[in-house]
Amino acid sequence: MQLNKIRILGIDPGLATTGISVIESVNDNSYIALYCSCIETKKKDMIHIRLKKIYFAIDDIIKKYKPSYLAIEELFFSANAKTAIDVGQARGVSMLAASNNDLEIYEYTPLEVKQAVVGYGRATKDQIKYMVKIILNLQEDKFPKKDDAWDSMAIAITHASFKKFKDKTRQ
Amino acid sequence: MQLNKIRILGIDPGLATTGISVIESVNDNSYIALYCSCIETKKKDMIHIRLKKIYFAIDDIIKKYKPSYLAIEELFFSANAKTAIDVGQARGVSMLAASNNDLEIYEYTPLEVKQAVVGYGRATKDQIKYMVKIILNLQEDKFPKKDDAWDSMAIAITHASFKKFKDKTRQ
Repeated sequence: MQLNKIRILGIDPGLATTGISVIESVNDNSYIALYCSCIETKKKDMIHIRLKKIYFAIDDIIKKYKPSYLAIEELFFSANAKTAIDVGQARGVSMLAASNNDLEIYEYTPLEVKQAVVGYGRATKDQIKYMVKIILNLQEDKFPKKDDAWDSMAIAITHASFKKFKDKTRQ
Repeated sequence: MQLNKIRILGIDPGLATTGISVIESVNDNSYIALYCSCIETKKKDMIHIRLKKIYFAIDDIIKKYKPSYLAIEELFFSANAKTAIDVGQARGVSMLAASNNDLEIYEYTPLEVKQAVVGYGRATKDQIKYMVKIILNLQEDKFPKKDDAWDSMAIAITHASFKKFKDKTRQ
């Protein structure tokens, strides 16, 4: 029997901290985390230096793990416009890195992530973490420290489950 | 006498319309517009397609005109967060294109642009256009249609005058 493996890059974009992970789905029924980390940039650095760091860090991960899809959060609101511009800038270069490497790009809202991972649109951060651990069979030494890293795994899982659903409805 | 020429790329970023121009300053006392246009992207296209178009259009202009500086607007507010994220995304890939081509990047606030071009922080759009025409000695057949294109010339002029001032204070 042939194994059907797909690799998904999950990104939770931010100017200071970008969560990034790569998960692999095998035959649409088991998922493992191949990579999970955060790209961090310093406030003292100029904005274009920070954006360049984000772009090339993502480019490196893509070239190493060769994912076929990028799943990234779709955002419509923010506490303030400065934050929205900063997130937008980080999100823009993230998508560009994926696009320049020919990944297919999918956007999911926070609601879709919660529904896909926990099955409940008003799930808490802890409930999401709990399910991410189970779905990816994560061992404690692999637990990331930052929420952004957890969120990037959650959005990658969202795409995996969305794709599974879509492929099934096509049959 | 040796001519001291510098070329400045001015960008007014936006997801749908990015104003872009290249001006040349000769000996810090005459300015001409070498290029002025808008990069336009379609709402029906996916966001990463639009960002890629903006990135590579800027990359082309930089490779053709070889400016040494990018002057771009620094924004802190927006009417709504969706717009702020979109502007941020376009601004992020614009700065990345400049950074990847080794341009020095300078950000100016709308207030600084008005003060540099018109000498008055509450100048209107029409007053800015009027001064841009005079400063660049623009002929009517070269008038751009869109405000974004005018704004990109205004921000390039802002950097030219900032640089002139800074160089003078160094002497």
